Amino acid sequence: MGDDNIPIKFGIIGCAEIARKVSRAINLSPNSTLHAIASRSIEKARQFALKNGLSETVKIYGSYDQLLDDPRIDAVYLPLPTSLHVQWAVLAAQKRKHLLMEKPTALDVEELDQILDACESNCVQFMDGTMWYHHPRTAKMKELASDSLLFGQLKWIHSSSTFTSAPEFFENNIRVKPDMDALGALGDTGWYCIGAILWAMNYQLPTTVVALPATARNSAGVILSCSASLHWDTEQIAATFHCSFLSHESMDLALYGSNGSLHVEDFIIPYEENSAFFDFTSGAKFVDLHIGWNVKPQRVQVASQLPQEALMVQEFSRLVKGIRDSKSSPDSKWAKISRSTQLVMDAVKKSIDLGFEPVCL
Amino acid sequence: MGDDNIPIKFGIIGCAEIARKVSRAINLSPNSTLHAIASRSIEKARQFALKNGLSETVKIYGSYDQLLDDPRIDAVYLPLPTSLHVQWAVLAAQKRKHLLMEKPTALDVEELDQILDACESNCVQFMDGTMWYHHPRTAKMKELASDSLLFGQLKWIHSSSTFTSAPEFFENNIRVKPDMDALGALGDTGWYCIGAILWAMNYQLPTTVVALPATARNSAGVILSCSASLHWDTEQIAATFHCSFLSHESMDLALYGSNGSLHVEDFIIPYEENSAFFDFTSGAKFVDLHIGWNVKPQRVQVASQLPQEALMVQEFSRLVKGIRDSKSSPDSKWAKISRSTQLVMDAVKKSIDLGFEPVCL
Repeated sequence: MGDDNIPIKFGIIGCAEIARKVSRAINLSPNSTLHAIASRSIEKARQFALKNGLSETVKIYGSYDQLLDDPRIDAVYLPLPTSLHVQWAVLAAQKRKHLLMEKPTALDVEELDQILDACESNCVQFMDGTMWYHHPRTAKMKELASDSLLFGQLKWIHSSSTFTSAPEFFENNIRVKPDMDALGALGDTGWYCIGAILWAMNYQLPTTVVALPATARNSAGVILSCSASLHWDTEQIAATFHCSFLSHESMDLALYGSNGSLHVEDFIIPYEENSAFFDFTSGAKFVDLHIGWNVKPQRVQVASQLPQEALMVQEFSRLVKGIRDSKSSPDSKWAKISRSTQLVMDAVKKSIDLGFEPVCL
Repeated sequence: MGDDNIPIKFGIIGCAEIARKVSRAINLSPNSTLHAIASRSIEKARQFALKNGLSETVKIYGSYDQLLDDPRIDAVYLPLPTSLHVQWAVLAAQKRKHLLMEKPTALDVEELDQILDACESNCVQFMDGTMWYHHPRTAKMKELASDSLLFGQLKWIHSSSTFTSAPEFFENNIRVKPDMDALGALGDTGWYCIGAILWAMNYQLPTTVVALPATARNSAGVILSCSASLHWDTEQIAATFHCSFLSHESMDLALYGSNGSLHVEDFIIPYEENSAFFDFTSGAKFVDLHIGWNVKPQRVQVASQLPQEALMVQEFSRLVKGIRDSKSSPDSKWAKISRSTQLVMDAVKKSIDLGFEPVCL
């Protein structure tokens, strides 16, 4: 098993801004290494390598096909505009490259299914690039929110994911272009809210999804801001979320249970890399005369040895190593999480398109 | 103007649990004094006086009528079940007693209008018992949320107000009895959410209200849990709230603006009496590589010389003194706030009754 010590060799397809963060994460993760990058222009790829101080050993390709044809590459990270995902992800899978793919995974679940089918038939590991799932804080939040005494039964979830940007973002960014990222804010920041809500529900799909009648679009019809509510009929649990390119930075997740509540306001990108916190309240009652609370929220601090994106790469590479070196099967857990998120996103989109009618899942 | 130093003499009609807190507040407020209490049974009133260490000078009445006929009483605090509000509030106004009334103000706006008409035609001050409006923290939050640079334009509001209780609450409390407080959790805790949302919107009524399809009722049909979204079409602002008797204590208000955000998790009853805080974030951006934030929320601490309910009584008594001693007119501000809140509450109720259809205001 000498192969076990050979790190997973990554290729990055597309030199997007987010690729800077993930190339650093690949280098920080102990079981992976950056082998190559590709852009449609070799000059752009060279600039990317220079700007980010990449090692001279990193191959520079001027086309995505060239990178996919490099037999030394185990896995690709794919941060292309969403419209291009299905084409390049399917090809990557056919070339037996394991696939770490930026969110939103696809324009709709039919496209995503093409990708997942290609991964499955080529024995390729799939994972989307949602980083916060991999932070140890997330595991700690799940532990407390699953505690039937401290938290009790989940009743209600609220999430927001918003940011705003300079006017040039609204002119030029791919996330507001109908031919690039047609899902706009729903695909970009809404992905996190939907993921967080599903995470809280252990990926049980909602019975009904209804978009709320407050959607902002740009002149090309791309969603700049929207919101929705999700409902689980049998459990009488509900959730709301708000995603937007028009509001100040927010990354809120609040879980309300029968015995406790949990609040976090930086769930997607923690304020700081090395340590993150959330607030947990359990068994709160009013003191006599209702002039105060018997307990205040407890601030739970969780240290992280590596940035969450490096932990994501490490987990992905661990699975890929299992397949490459030990003939394990791909772990379908991550594909299922992506698919559930995409399904709910599709339902929100459909509800908006239907004029805010409820959509059953 | 020798009368100016004579405090406002209060009578309390109904010895509800909340009357304990307000009788203390009347004593703490420098411009008011508790003159009398009334219960339908003189024995119950005596027990209330004894249990709460009321002064022996406080008159004890065995009927509400007797208290209203006491000419020395300037104002009444009325914490009766909602179903009884219209009857006793109108009578109090006719007897020229200024009216501090527990929320929800009435079962619907038609009832509330009867009360407000009686107050107006008898030159009587009206205020509902929403205490948090009077905390200096509330003014500080408004100051920051109104700052066009620090906060920018309001985009989204979320609020929750929930608590749960022992099984006997669900058996015996007036708030789950259809003949007492037919509005259940919507009237009790939902009142605060709706009030907070309207407060954030400077009392501009929403264009549309739609209840979300997740309402829990008891066997008698009283709402135990519900939620709704509110929309202001022209401004593209939206709000959601969740109110419930089935979730752990929560009192969340989150305001999302174009340049800042504000979070408070104890907005109705602060954790502590003397000092309260909220979190304010302004101008947050990601640091390079999106591996953290440039700023963290700032915790804004606001001291309070008096408990918020004493500040409420003080403000109410100040207005009553103006009328009593200086022939001022009643201040209609508080009636307008109550009426707007009631109107939105009625719309939520109607949307629920219509099967979660949007209701225009």
